[in-house]
Amino acid sequence: MAAARARQAQLTKPPGSLGVLEEISIRLAGICADPRPRIGAKSVIVCAGDHGVVAQGVSAYPQEVTGQMVANILAGGAAINVLARHVGARVVVLDVGVVSDVSPSPTLVVRKVGRGTADLSIGPAMDRDQAIASIAAGIEVAGCEVDRGASVLATGEMGIGNTTPSSAIAAVLCRCPVASVTGTGTGLDGEGRARKVAAIERGLTVNRPDASDPIDVLAKVGGFEIGAIAGVILGAAARRVPVVVDGFISTAGALVAAALAPEASAYVIATHVSVEPGHRTMLDRLGLTPFFDVDFRLGEGTGAALALGFVEAACKILDEMATFEGAGVADGR
Amino acid sequence: MAAARARQAQLTKPPGSLGVLEEISIRLAGICADPRPRIGAKSVIVCAGDHGVVAQGVSAYPQEVTGQMVANILAGGAAINVLARHVGARVVVLDVGVVSDVSPSPTLVVRKVGRGTADLSIGPAMDRDQAIASIAAGIEVAGCEVDRGASVLATGEMGIGNTTPSSAIAAVLCRCPVASVTGTGTGLDGEGRARKVAAIERGLTVNRPDASDPIDVLAKVGGFEIGAIAGVILGAAARRVPVVVDGFISTAGALVAAALAPEASAYVIATHVSVEPGHRTMLDRLGLTPFFDVDFRLGEGTGAALALGFVEAACKILDEMATFEGAGVADGR
Repeated sequence: MAAARARQAQLTKPPGSLGVLEEISIRLAGICADPRPRIGAKSVIVCAGDHGVVAQGVSAYPQEVTGQMVANILAGGAAINVLARHVGARVVVLDVGVVSDVSPSPTLVVRKVGRGTADLSIGPAMDRDQAIASIAAGIEVAGCEVDRGASVLATGEMGIGNTTPSSAIAAVLCRCPVASVTGTGTGLDGEGRARKVAAIERGLTVNRPDASDPIDVLAKVGGFEIGAIAGVILGAAARRVPVVVDGFISTAGALVAAALAPEASAYVIATHVSVEPGHRTMLDRLGLTPFFDVDFRLGEGTGAALALGFVEAACKILDEMATFEGAGVADGR
Repeated sequence: MAAARARQAQLTKPPGSLGVLEEISIRLAGICADPRPRIGAKSVIVCAGDHGVVAQGVSAYPQEVTGQMVANILAGGAAINVLARHVGARVVVLDVGVVSDVSPSPTLVVRKVGRGTADLSIGPAMDRDQAIASIAAGIEVAGCEVDRGASVLATGEMGIGNTTPSSAIAAVLCRCPVASVTGTGTGLDGEGRARKVAAIERGLTVNRPDASDPIDVLAKVGGFEIGAIAGVILGAAARRVPVVVDGFISTAGALVAAALAPEASAYVIATHVSVEPGHRTMLDRLGLTPFFDVDFRLGEGTGAALALGFVEAACKILDEMATFEGAGVADGR
């Protein structure tokens, strides 16, 4: 990082004038242990699962949309595919808990921990072994992508109803009121949001998740794909590969990862602030600063995919720009 | 725009969930008069000029850096080159007033309106004919780039001292105090900034620019490259080509363009908010909303170049995503 910072100061621009891009390049130098890191292959890992809590009317879409959208992603027609192609990234889907069977595909990894979680508003979403298995699946796929040559990973997700467990995790791990971290998801009205807040509050009362035990929180009020995202982050960090997190759900996964291994946050690049009100709370808790202001609330990894282009640009600035000395430019000091 | 908006509602995502990307795609449909616009070739036009007001100690860098940096850009070593390559854009330099002679290059257009402006703190920066000539040069180069096939343009600039005339233009056209729109540029200290504010205030007292006459404002307290940027914007708008504006100086050019032809603003895509305090004021005046928060204060077109990737992504979303019907996904309504 010190070497990268020193090089940034020699490049033909006022010191610090590329703001966030310079900071990202310096962080990447540290993450990759390389003073001039280069971004090669890029992978977006879309973790998918279903949620029993949809029975409480917490989503604007029916549960079968999870499987339909996974098929859409595998066929290349979803927003994440368009944006990943735009930045030259591969998209892999990790099915850790979709209710339906998804048709096989070369870019689908099936590690079903269950067929949807149980309804977290009336009991635990999953048992402890399932929580651990979902995290392990994410670690595994992150490792596979790194073995295939990925130099940076991005997290994404698909799971109808998954802002509900994400809000629950945020409330517990950020120790704040449910209503302050619960939004309208993909399109609830005010009444729908009130149902969602009530369902989460019942879930916390019934389950009493232990805020000091992230596996307990994930098991009681989480989701399989949220565990898998936590695993992707832990797996990336363990391999010294930067991991770009998407929006609200991915950041809930990052909260779980950071609660398990605080050092993991250093490997995470935040991207945008979702329209979901709890997102900023979680980012603050993680000490992460987003840099897009694009009003996204889609998920799938769409914000992270766009940010991959930024991360690559940051590394190119550090690597490719001329120095004051090399270009014969007076440096003004 | 109506056709684009209708198509966005059919794509496999919650309505509006891609926020700014959706809005950009709809605006581009209107600009290009095409319900599914595609981005092909992209050009960044870097307008370059020098400023007599540097004699007042308003910049952290000596005047010769303008010519040195133009040479660096033509050699491909500047930040704008790295970021333009990253998004697949061509970089053209328009010299409307660099003091020194710049070595010929295939990507350099020389239309010197003068060799640097006069010192705006003691008299007019240029005469009225020069102001018009600088705008005409921008219109000409914008037209050439469109004739070469550019589907979108981006503005950039290089000119040591050019935040000073930009702040002066902002103060006059936004009718606000000089100090509220004057920052530290590429690296002034507090004393340097005070000198800069004083120089602009003297310039406004001596020159009495007419806020209702944008050519008068440009001539008395502007810069050649700022006029050229205004011209690029007018030229793009006249050809129905979107133009992505960079930071503080480019937005001063956009203010001049919009004062001359208010319809031009509809063709402008704003990108980021510069660290310069007057930038937000100018964007508000123009009714433009930026979507990066990256702490840039470099100029050259760097923010606009990064944004070109966003604009292209927005068009791809509209054009390439599957529809609910086409993908067999329930649309939840």
